[in-house]
Amino acid sequence: MIEREELIEIVTREVLAVLAGEHQDLEHAGRAVESGAARLGYSGRGEDVPEALGQYIDHTMLKPTATPAEIDTLCDEALKYHFAAVCINPAWVSRAARRLRGTPVRVASVVGFPLGANTPQIKAMETRQALRDGAREIDMVINIGALKGGELDLVQKDIAGVSDACREVGALNKVIIEAAYLTDEEKVIACRLAKEAKAHFVKTSTGFGPGGATVFDVALMREVVGEKMGVKAAGGIHSAEEVRQMITAGASRIGASAGVRIVSGTEGEADAAY
Amino acid sequence: MIEREELIEIVTREVLAVLAGEHQDLEHAGRAVESGAARLGYSGRGEDVPEALGQYIDHTMLKPTATPAEIDTLCDEALKYHFAAVCINPAWVSRAARRLRGTPVRVASVVGFPLGANTPQIKAMETRQALRDGAREIDMVINIGALKGGELDLVQKDIAGVSDACREVGALNKVIIEAAYLTDEEKVIACRLAKEAKAHFVKTSTGFGPGGATVFDVALMREVVGEKMGVKAAGGIHSAEEVRQMITAGASRIGASAGVRIVSGTEGEADAAY
Repeated sequence: MIEREELIEIVTREVLAVLAGEHQDLEHAGRAVESGAARLGYSGRGEDVPEALGQYIDHTMLKPTATPAEIDTLCDEALKYHFAAVCINPAWVSRAARRLRGTPVRVASVVGFPLGANTPQIKAMETRQALRDGAREIDMVINIGALKGGELDLVQKDIAGVSDACREVGALNKVIIEAAYLTDEEKVIACRLAKEAKAHFVKTSTGFGPGGATVFDVALMREVVGEKMGVKAAGGIHSAEEVRQMITAGASRIGASAGVRIVSGTEGEADAAY
Repeated sequence: MIEREELIEIVTREVLAVLAGEHQDLEHAGRAVESGAARLGYSGRGEDVPEALGQYIDHTMLKPTATPAEIDTLCDEALKYHFAAVCINPAWVSRAARRLRGTPVRVASVVGFPLGANTPQIKAMETRQALRDGAREIDMVINIGALKGGELDLVQKDIAGVSDACREVGALNKVIIEAAYLTDEEKVIACRLAKEAKAHFVKTSTGFGPGGATVFDVALMREVVGEKMGVKAAGGIHSAEEVRQMITAGASRIGASAGVRIVSGTEGEADAAY
């Protein structure tokens, strides 16, 4: 287990150093973390944002009222617009996997969603069932209260149980830190714990919390996890311009229910969701 | 499996008949269902609301940011004010059960919460673990999208898996229908399915949906399930007067994060929560 104090020290040093490399000025970089890297024009990785944004998008429908017919439409739209994945609740994974079999569109399921306050055992079991049902990506929520209470060992074990289940079958674990509930320090700790627990991605938000993705959070998360992990921006992303901003700040995947509108300028049926 | 059409017929007849018995006028009763039984002064069961309201209250903290220390405070308040139970997320059940061992306060855990779109297998497993961890009541959420899509068999099996696990150890299954998402017809169907699936309670709301308990919903749910099941009103209940209204309409249990204020007129620490 990493001690909280040690973590904060490592991360402050690391984040400031990387931002300093960009800005040639440590004091300036320190203020960037304080005030939002975006305002300084900080570019995490995405200097070349491709024209085709569809490959970045997890086409998402997580509203509790989603019917089987709406899930079918979501799958068909994902195929039509070449989205990376559909992101859905676990009850619909086997249905979506059947519909998307033999296509490049992956099925992503959520786990411990959206509150994250389930036991580690159930998160791992929910993951294994989703993978058996055909999911190839898991978007799990951390135990937010444990993080806030300083029980970092519990937070890390909780993530590791899902990572291990994913790695056994070559699936991806995306760790939702629900940034809107966290201080900047807690965001950094959560990303470090996800990295230690061998997750593949960190993700900003569930879309059910008090706020969604911000450019600052994406830049901060990218700095903490480095270039080998993914960063998924999700929550409140409604336009191609916002997608490009998130990619420029360091996002490698975008979660959105407005994917059809984003890539085509028209309204998709899945649009009303989140 | 009960057919949808058959259900609607049974229930319309039943609800109208019971209301007619109260009002001596079938047309009048029909309008009561339409316009809200409360406005007609309909009293489901609670003509005698006791002075001590604490025994009705599930002292509730389900916010994702709840820390272990806040859960401890919730337990201590429940004991002090003689509440029926604490209602908490599954990650904290074993902790609360240890703290409340040997007291009359029961531990209630939520399952498939708050979206309800988990698989029946995981809902049953999450129930079994909560019961092993010390829960004696389970507040589960139905598969709302399956109900709306007419997959009533799935809705019923989903509930039955949790009811069965509860009945094995003498625990209670409270079925959250998340009424704010449902038409009146869907509310009636959900309550019928909960009764068929041998649940112990129906419950109005998670507190995370677009609306909480209403007097009309409580009266309607009480009519559908009859006198042998419980009805729990939850979501947005902040005062002793509101508790009395819910009990008068037919509620036998109240879910609230404002329990301390309700019974004492003062602010409890759990108050800010849901």
